[in-house]
Amino acid sequence: MLTVALPKGELLKNSIRLLQSVGLDFSGFLDSGNRQLQIPDASGQAKALLVRAQDVPVYVEYGQAQLGIVGYDVLQEKKPQVAQLVDLQFGYCRMSVAVKASSSYKTPLDLPAHGRVASKYVNCARDYFQGLDLPVEIVPLYGSVELGPITGMSEAIVDIVSTGKTLRENGLVEIATLYESTARLIVHPLSYRLNMGNINQLVEQLRVEQLTVNR
Amino acid sequence: MLTVALPKGELLKNSIRLLQSVGLDFSGFLDSGNRQLQIPDASGQAKALLVRAQDVPVYVEYGQAQLGIVGYDVLQEKKPQVAQLVDLQFGYCRMSVAVKASSSYKTPLDLPAHGRVASKYVNCARDYFQGLDLPVEIVPLYGSVELGPITGMSEAIVDIVSTGKTLRENGLVEIATLYESTARLIVHPLSYRLNMGNINQLVEQLRVEQLTVNR
Repeated sequence: MLTVALPKGELLKNSIRLLQSVGLDFSGFLDSGNRQLQIPDASGQAKALLVRAQDVPVYVEYGQAQLGIVGYDVLQEKKPQVAQLVDLQFGYCRMSVAVKASSSYKTPLDLPAHGRVASKYVNCARDYFQGLDLPVEIVPLYGSVELGPITGMSEAIVDIVSTGKTLRENGLVEIATLYESTARLIVHPLSYRLNMGNINQLVEQLRVEQLTVNR
Repeated sequence: MLTVALPKGELLKNSIRLLQSVGLDFSGFLDSGNRQLQIPDASGQAKALLVRAQDVPVYVEYGQAQLGIVGYDVLQEKKPQVAQLVDLQFGYCRMSVAVKASSSYKTPLDLPAHGRVASKYVNCARDYFQGLDLPVEIVPLYGSVELGPITGMSEAIVDIVSTGKTLRENGLVEIATLYESTARLIVHPLSYRLNMGNINQLVEQLRVEQLTVNR
């Protein structure tokens, strides 16, 4: 039986809809009273795990789930040993550098050397500024990264932006984009190579379905 | 003006109550409709930041907040450069090793060498098993750590336990305790040494208040 790791949060609804379109029903996770972390598909073909977005690649990497759906941003940050097979096109957002709207920084290169950048995505932020040859100090935060510049702890942040509402509400503006992100179908490489549980067929169905939906 | 970093979640209510007892009112954070991340005290003496528990020591370490309240578990995991001044006695929990109730592991030393331990507290877990001289692989997770043993990804978990309800519901049992944790008052070392904003007096008041409440 195949196991699919699904991310809590933003991507869950679309992920479940996509799997429904290929005959796998995990809509039980969407019930507001749901407390279950794993549920079987009614057909008995597969089961699903409901986990934090950052944990999806962990379950797939260890082969506890053969398939997973997760944002490109998480894959960029963690660089897990998984196969990225299909861009599912939903869950668009971008990884951006933002600063106080009142500051004089118009591009990342305007930031002071050894300035501070607060981020939940410390690897993405570090790689980006190393690529610019600008030495900065990355301040790792777990939430409300926008407080970095507001409190004066950091000159900038590197964070996910979708509508930009949070930035605007906090008086911040984007000055650069590191990359754009969408949901991805990831697969445990060995399971894919050995076609465990006929996984290749399911991946093909999901690929076709995704193309049909987004045409 | 002094800034206090307060943790979202479990410890917030008691933290706010304690600060009220020394004349600082940040109860606005408890309003269900609150979206503010920083609020001033009515007296104008201080302001408070509302941040993730893991971020409290970051704000205090960088001196953006002179004071903070955070669980000992977070301090053990992050080892931030802050002064730990008062054990506030509330927010009791313990860091435990747990395994499937149906397993044969009665102590951590029963775990297989090179077995896997899932945890959100990777540093605590690593230090503990190194201390036992038992080489294990730590699997870093962000949430629902109990899925590790349930899915078979790991033999054990290292996680915070308060009532034990989550463990019981998931068929897990504790086999060892790493340490017990309560809320701590932490201070920015330099601010304390220089007695910025008369911080020493406030710390003393909090210490006395805490003793009175817990007598």
